[in-house]
Amino acid sequence: MAGNTFGERFQITTFGESHGEAVGVIIDGVTPGVEIDEAYIQVQMDRRKPGQSSVTSPRKEYDKIHIISGTFEGKTTGTPLSIILYNTDMRPEAYDDIKNSFRPGHADFTYLQKYGVRDHRGSGRASGRETASRVAAGAVARKLLERRGVSLVAYTTEIGGIKCRDFIEDAIEANPVRACDPDAAMKMVEKIEALALAGDSCGGIVECRIRGVHPGLGEPAFDKLDAELAKAMLSIGAIKGIEFGAGFAAASMLGSEHNDQMNADGFSSNHAGGIIGGISTGADIVFRVVVKPTSSISVPQNTINVNGEEKVIVTKGRHDPCICPRVVPVVEAMACLVIEDHYKRQAALLY
Amino acid sequence: MAGNTFGERFQITTFGESHGEAVGVIIDGVTPGVEIDEAYIQVQMDRRKPGQSSVTSPRKEYDKIHIISGTFEGKTTGTPLSIILYNTDMRPEAYDDIKNSFRPGHADFTYLQKYGVRDHRGSGRASGRETASRVAAGAVARKLLERRGVSLVAYTTEIGGIKCRDFIEDAIEANPVRACDPDAAMKMVEKIEALALAGDSCGGIVECRIRGVHPGLGEPAFDKLDAELAKAMLSIGAIKGIEFGAGFAAASMLGSEHNDQMNADGFSSNHAGGIIGGISTGADIVFRVVVKPTSSISVPQNTINVNGEEKVIVTKGRHDPCICPRVVPVVEAMACLVIEDHYKRQAALLY
Amino acid sequence: MAGNTFGERFQITTFGESHGEAVGVIIDGVTPGVEIDEAYIQVQMDRRKPGQSSVTSPRKEYDKIHIISGTFEGKTTGTPLSIILYNTDMRPEAYDDIKNSFRPGHADFTYLQKYGVRDHRGSGRASGRETASRVAAGAVARKLLERRGVSLVAYTTEIGGIKCRDFIEDAIEANPVRACDPDAAMKMVEKIEALALAGDSCGGIVECRIRGVHPGLGEPAFDKLDAELAKAMLSIGAIKGIEFGAGFAAASMLGSEHNDQMNADGFSSNHAGGIIGGISTGADIVFRVVVKPTSSISVPQNTINVNGEEKVIVTKGRHDPCICPRVVPVVEAMACLVIEDHYKRQAALLY
Amino acid sequence: MAGNTFGERFQITTFGESHGEAVGVIIDGVTPGVEIDEAYIQVQMDRRKPGQSSVTSPRKEYDKIHIISGTFEGKTTGTPLSIILYNTDMRPEAYDDIKNSFRPGHADFTYLQKYGVRDHRGSGRASGRETASRVAAGAVARKLLERRGVSLVAYTTEIGGIKCRDFIEDAIEANPVRACDPDAAMKMVEKIEALALAGDSCGGIVECRIRGVHPGLGEPAFDKLDAELAKAMLSIGAIKGIEFGAGFAAASMLGSEHNDQMNADGFSSNHAGGIIGGISTGADIVFRVVVKPTSSISVPQNTINVNGEEKVIVTKGRHDPCICPRVVPVVEAMACLVIEDHYKRQAALLY
Repeated sequence: MAGNTFGERFQITTFGESHGEAVGVIIDGVTPGVEIDEAYIQVQMDRRKPGQSSVTSPRKEYDKIHIISGTFEGKTTGTPLSIILYNTDMRPEAYDDIKNSFRPGHADFTYLQKYGVRDHRGSGRASGRETASRVAAGAVARKLLERRGVSLVAYTTEIGGIKCRDFIEDAIEANPVRACDPDAAMKMVEKIEALALAGDSCGGIVECRIRGVHPGLGEPAFDKLDAELAKAMLSIGAIKGIEFGAGFAAASMLGSEHNDQMNADGFSSNHAGGIIGGISTGADIVFRVVVKPTSSISVPQNTINVNGEEKVIVTKGRHDPCICPRVVPVVEAMACLVIEDHYKRQAALLY
Repeated sequence: MAGNTFGERFQITTFGESHGEAVGVIIDGVTPGVEIDEAYIQVQMDRRKPGQSSVTSPRKEYDKIHIISGTFEGKTTGTPLSIILYNTDMRPEAYDDIKNSFRPGHADFTYLQKYGVRDHRGSGRASGRETASRVAAGAVARKLLERRGVSLVAYTTEIGGIKCRDFIEDAIEANPVRACDPDAAMKMVEKIEALALAGDSCGGIVECRIRGVHPGLGEPAFDKLDAELAKAMLSIGAIKGIEFGAGFAAASMLGSEHNDQMNADGFSSNHAGGIIGGISTGADIVFRVVVKPTSSISVPQNTINVNGEEKVIVTKGRHDPCICPRVVPVVEAMACLVIEDHYKRQAALLY
Repeated sequence: MAGNTFGERFQITTFGESHGEAVGVIIDGVTPGVEIDEAYIQVQMDRRKPGQSSVTSPRKEYDKIHIISGTFEGKTTGTPLSIILYNTDMRPEAYDDIKNSFRPGHADFTYLQKYGVRDHRGSGRASGRETASRVAAGAVARKLLERRGVSLVAYTTEIGGIKCRDFIEDAIEANPVRACDPDAAMKMVEKIEALALAGDSCGGIVECRIRGVHPGLGEPAFDKLDAELAKAMLSIGAIKGIEFGAGFAAASMLGSEHNDQMNADGFSSNHAGGIIGGISTGADIVFRVVVKPTSSISVPQNTINVNGEEKVIVTKGRHDPCICPRVVPVVEAMACLVIEDHYKRQAALLY
Repeated sequence: MAGNTFGERFQITTFGESHGEAVGVIIDGVTPGVEIDEAYIQVQMDRRKPGQSSVTSPRKEYDKIHIISGTFEGKTTGTPLSIILYNTDMRPEAYDDIKNSFRPGHADFTYLQKYGVRDHRGSGRASGRETASRVAAGAVARKLLERRGVSLVAYTTEIGGIKCRDFIEDAIEANPVRACDPDAAMKMVEKIEALALAGDSCGGIVECRIRGVHPGLGEPAFDKLDAELAKAMLSIGAIKGIEFGAGFAAASMLGSEHNDQMNADGFSSNHAGGIIGGISTGADIVFRVVVKPTSSISVPQNTINVNGEEKVIVTKGRHDPCICPRVVPVVEAMACLVIEDHYKRQAALLY
């Protein structure tokens, strides 16, 4: 299976470049007969789109979805559900000066090494814009998961060294960084605004909690539920690590501490993050991902050009000084895709 | 593709239970005409097998490989290379008392939830013994990678809160915990021995460094090299998290710190861990995984039985108080499988 | 892998309904750096499009391709090459009277059985219009194959009982039925025109000859080259059978007749059709497919409606009385996809 | 997915060479909790094994199956069910004289072209012996299909120009050629015996009828049920063509003849062979395959050796003068694999 396709029975294929004509996605394997409300998908798109606040890129993409196929009279037909998002606010000329140079932290160098050619405009296919396709597909998966009683929420827990202390779920969508602690959120916004002025950027951590997943999902040995969630998350460009449950803290725990003991009501702790042996336990699935600082900064940096000559580069364009708030809906989307796919695989196994 | 198969063009399928007749692996897509030396594979098997030292399980498995097909006159033929390891030191009766109870931290509960039936003997398919198949396959991949100039090494960097300070590569295989710092290794062994006496266990961290990977490997958008390495690692039962390069530390770094600047000699740092935009940069690929404390402990724990009744359980059997040293060759094996597969995918793309 | 995706390393995913907004295709795994000339693709589209002659459907679709992604400055980039064909001459209202009835020979009944819902307009996804996407993708594969020295030609050899006696390659595209014998072609056209007047249809046979394929393509055991060509051809709705080389005639041949003996110049016959043991021999790959009579006829037929009530139906709409001439470019396209994909798989194996 | 793996959710991977240590199969995705009776599988193995009668190869392989994993206390566990068949009656030295020459009709030449090396002993991986693995896996699928009410039967309808006139189902397993007409069967046996004396061989036709398949199976566009059956059948080395329902006869039929009209009781004919638009109709699935004359004959033939020098070859070894009777259980096995897999895919789609 080629690299732009993801999933087994609920399968998506994405296409499109940042400053090309459009980005989009084909979703195959959608349960037929399900009402698909365009507004429902659009809500998720709007959470990811740029230009939402002072801490996100000022690029104006309305990310209006167009469903091209796969529905009839408002319901899914089981045939490929395709969604296109036409690019509207393209400024490819803004990238002319990086045509022949490699921006540090960007995929400029690696794309050229891999393909021998590259579309340098706004990172082309390597742009975060590709994730818009994922959010559209994830919204369809989310709709199917709602019918199964599964819900999920992702949120920022740390930005630029500032950590959330509280978990107030209602606060998440009410602050521009999607942090779970409104006090921390205020400090995060201040930090990001200051960095933006300095032309710099910062990283953070996003946590995701999936509720209502039935026990028994996940396919040993290789397609373990955590393995596939890890792949899904690391396939998001800015994400450089993931941990489940107790995560890296497990390195200094004893077995007697880490093991989740059981009683008649279920598990008395959730250090495993809801997955044991690659299979869901029925407890909440909890994982955290680390989001690297945005690579596009206007601080001068050393680099080389395509001829190997050293130069200093200052990245222009319209960028997010911290990508965490916009990663949140992408993390949710990818999680939805994985979980929905595994429900279908489990149905196939047991049938 | 079902869950016991991994890879696209260099593809493995594993089978077998811990206390069944055998475990094994079918490797498909092996480059034909390559000399395969059984001793070469056996070296890797011996690094993973139990009974190597005071800090590993006393189970005696010689893990002698049998190549059943796919070679002719000492060379690979390009047809499926199959390897079987017959189980020899099985004591399924040791597990009779956990037949109807769920050991905390084990896949007992989740396997029963998923399949409705389970082979409880030594965790059946969920046993770490399944990784022996992976190490055998990984050795074949390692052989192919050597021809490409790729080498790799994994090692323990932390166990039970004790961290390595030095990196002495020659020391790694010379100490029983495969730590990269011999002083730390001594303390780790002491810690593990004390925990073993107390019937408890501990976790740790293993780092892997892959050298010589050409720039350009990795398939955007979903089959990014780090995404597939993450899946590969999280598919190892005991591993609960992964981070590349600077990893979780990136959460508190600035873009101007995290970006790897370039000069005429290459990258001046490697916070990306050798992968940008999902594609290898040519720098060393570096990642760390967290290994949870072994679930099998003889400390009494609360659990339930298959009827939902509460009980106290003490896990018997022969177990590793810290699995890090035996995870090391498994991490290397899985990394070899991913890298070799991506070399083949890149060859297909460019052809 | 879901059912609308085809191929392993040169992989396509198609979408779209006959009377929806568009049909299209995402092609993943395209060799980067290859010049793609839109006109080159359009030539193939024009060979398949309706309205070419008196023997094809009068529906007016210009089948103008739009490349949405995957090229930059006229060359492929290695990222998903997506092509959209907007539907223009839609008349969904022409299908209102078959909304609740099943047309004999059509997928109306089976789609409803499978999905529980269906887009009845012009057969929706089951329409031959879906093959336009395949022809677009096939043209890209054909371009890549030209660089390898592979060429191919398909042609009608039989329609409505009239068989070609001659093989005159230059005549194929010069007659409206794409027959390899111009005399037979004239009779075929007469036969089709008479049937069209009577509201009936007829079937035929299309042969394909692929030249220049290197020996060694095809992946035993299951992904044999003939097995994958067979799947590709039977995935075309109207095709109900395939035979390679001597084909069904082999049933009454002796081994001493059927075996292709070899001499210093190669094979002295080609009863195998260029494939032995699932692997190309280097001889021309030759196969024939049977095309069923078009299901859409205006002769009254017995059927039932969605409530199981018997009724008589007369199919309206704009249809081809014999689909052979339009199947020819689809057969070629699918053959190109299979061969190109296998070149890439072989490159991966040997690398 | 590499070439020795078949299926999506009921997936098999086969391995092993004709004169190596063993052949075998890993079956992944088996519904857990199903009783698997070794004797049930052995019955199918015995139908395929050599040495059954005067018209089959005298090689003595007992084809005793060994289940290595995937069952516990007589029931499937949902983990990989692996079956090994150790080779017992190997005579690799019988093939020494063909080590450097290409037998006409065999895969000797193509394997060497593909892989650069080959195991020449008894055709190695290209041997019909590989199909023993398929029959073992097919028996497991057959067991699952029985629970769904699906049954199937394959039988010879033509050998060496002699055609069956009657269809007497009870006669099939009662004659050595598995023909559906006992009178024709007698003549076929005589013909084969005469050819065997002359050192020659002949081809034939095998038909398969699958009963009880629910309407709605098959995945458009590419994974149509007939497309996947075609791939499955053409993946059997000796099979060179397939046709469904009316098959090639459709080339001279009218639409008004070929369309299967419907009434309140169902379809009034079955020219479609039980599949329309790639989806099962609920009628019997009927297809025919052509079996080429066995390539191994002792009639002298022209060929070349690995140096391209012309020579005359006489094939020794123990061979079947007509492979039809032994192809019958392989056809059934492959059909079972495809149908069972599609039941699981449909379950995933609708879930």
